[in-house]
Amino acid sequence: MAPGVSNEKKTDDEQSSKDNFIHLCNPHLEKMKEDILYHFALGTGTHDFPALFGDVKFVCVGGSPSRMRAFIAYIAEELGLGSPGCDYPNICAGTDRYAMYKVGPVLSVSHGMGIPSISIMLHELIKLLYHAKCSNITIVRIGTSGGIGLEPGSVVITRQSVDATFKPQFEQVILGKTVIRSTNLDEQLAKELMQCSKEIGQFNTVIGNTMCTLDFYEGQGRLDGAICLYNEEEKLQYLKEAYDSGVRNIEMESSVFAAMCNLSGVKVEDPVLAGVCGGLTLAGHHAPTKAGLSLPLLSWAGERKYNKRLVGQDKDRERSLTNRLDLKKINLIFCQSDQSRVMRNKTKS
Amino acid sequence: MAPGVSNEKKTDDEQSSKDNFIHLCNPHLEKMKEDILYHFALGTGTHDFPALFGDVKFVCVGGSPSRMRAFIAYIAEELGLGSPGCDYPNICAGTDRYAMYKVGPVLSVSHGMGIPSISIMLHELIKLLYHAKCSNITIVRIGTSGGIGLEPGSVVITRQSVDATFKPQFEQVILGKTVIRSTNLDEQLAKELMQCSKEIGQFNTVIGNTMCTLDFYEGQGRLDGAICLYNEEEKLQYLKEAYDSGVRNIEMESSVFAAMCNLSGVKVEDPVLAGVCGGLTLAGHHAPTKAGLSLPLLSWAGERKYNKRLVGQDKDRERSLTNRLDLKKINLIFCQSDQSRVMRNKTKS
Repeated sequence: MAPGVSNEKKTDDEQSSKDNFIHLCNPHLEKMKEDILYHFALGTGTHDFPALFGDVKFVCVGGSPSRMRAFIAYIAEELGLGSPGCDYPNICAGTDRYAMYKVGPVLSVSHGMGIPSISIMLHELIKLLYHAKCSNITIVRIGTSGGIGLEPGSVVITRQSVDATFKPQFEQVILGKTVIRSTNLDEQLAKELMQCSKEIGQFNTVIGNTMCTLDFYEGQGRLDGAICLYNEEEKLQYLKEAYDSGVRNIEMESSVFAAMCNLSGVKVEDPVLAGVCGGLTLAGHHAPTKAGLSLPLLSWAGERKYNKRLVGQDKDRERSLTNRLDLKKINLIFCQSDQSRVMRNKTKS
Repeated sequence: MAPGVSNEKKTDDEQSSKDNFIHLCNPHLEKMKEDILYHFALGTGTHDFPALFGDVKFVCVGGSPSRMRAFIAYIAEELGLGSPGCDYPNICAGTDRYAMYKVGPVLSVSHGMGIPSISIMLHELIKLLYHAKCSNITIVRIGTSGGIGLEPGSVVITRQSVDATFKPQFEQVILGKTVIRSTNLDEQLAKELMQCSKEIGQFNTVIGNTMCTLDFYEGQGRLDGAICLYNEEEKLQYLKEAYDSGVRNIEMESSVFAAMCNLSGVKVEDPVLAGVCGGLTLAGHHAPTKAGLSLPLLSWAGERKYNKRLVGQDKDRERSLTNRLDLKKINLIFCQSDQSRVMRNKTKS
């Protein structure tokens, strides 16, 4: 079946009204016989997307391929769908642009570093979910970030993604013209994550604005790049202005992540494809060294959303999973090791 | 020794005047006892940079880790410094952000996709070359690109990198303020590469402007992304304007590559760290499918610059290498396979 922009017509009207399918904002795709997701090394002519991905409910994206592989092993164990030491094949083994892993309803995808890199991945991920006829999808981005005015190891749940001038927008040049897009994120999901953090009670977690920059060194006011033409006082003044505007951490992907999810059928109050950016902050005052990954944040979100989505669809499976997934008993292996790294870095600096 | 911004003081004045060392535009690095290149998993406190990298004369950078690994095997064979089937260790094995390989005077480094990703890599690469006390370095970026008005498989040697509005500049936000940087490239190196191509005579090669965008789908006028709010006519009008302004190919890294090399001690007429962006174009009119890599382009540049740099320093070694490196006898294994892929894609479309 050729891809289209409208939601799939369901024979069961009741089911159709409950499910939220991915929305593609591209009428040209209707005319294509085959859609090649080049950077995933997947295509509708060579792969059966509904069979491979039709059951996906939850997508986790993050920069590093090895971390996304580690995450899928972790979530598999938590969901009781894998065994310790079990290997999970990289679905995108035909390319080294991105890595993708799947277990049960969870897809884990790497996106590299920076807006352009995650943008390519999201275009192809959104099309993949569309072709697979997925519904009721939640996407969460996890990653490292530089904290502002926070203890190292804190987790920031993004309220709004802002640009380097603290505006909640994503600016993009399309056919030579500047287009501004909204970077709103799903408030309800942010609140749920915050509640999860409170229940676990092991991490300093805040909801705040996340500044998204196009550069890691000069763009984030670092003093240790190959090029730096400002002084420490100017840097601190800029970070203070960022803090005063509500920014609590800085990273490099959240704005386009929010903008693209918004354009793909997300309703903030009832998201189909919604995003919350969870960052493990790394230094009290934006020190140059960074480390760590806030995997537990994702697992909280994953389990809760996954369990919620199953209500009314597969009661037995839901009950079974819920029993195994007590939030307060989660083994925080990843975060514990990350905390150690952060503390080592802190001790050194 | 702590890093500094000025060129290293040589005891041999004559030697000093001949050699061009890397220039760091960052006075803060002088004060640092240790410099950690976090995204390379290397540091001055843990690695002996002069011993590891001091003999590097030529750096090749490209997006894909596996391609940069394939390149080092290729160049090792061409330089007579390796054996077929020999494996080359990834110097950055401690991270999966980038991959780095070395053979003799050649360093091969991956940079991921997009301006932010290559920017992080270049900051750390420039510092690496500085700490290693390298001199007379040439850097070439190779990669795939979308061609405009060219036969698929053509090679574009970049005259100037331009932005999505065809201006030869790189715009960057530093501490909240917009900074414009020059994207000039080394004219002499471009001419040398063009001459190499003529001598080989197997590829359509042009010198032209390269447009650098922040997005692969909407940013390059593609019709097959998850989001596309323009029509084919508008797309073609934009590409025509690009062509009329001198653009012959589109990619996603050249502008910051040129800007950062310029700021690191490059003189256009006598470069220390100079860049030419070589792209294998993939479609006559910017078709969505892309493939391939112009590795031979790099090997031409590498051999010529390497041979030139050795003049007056190691005559015997130079003669030995020159005998083995006849440009016209290069085994174009990579390009041949790439050409096949391009042609297959052309046939399919």
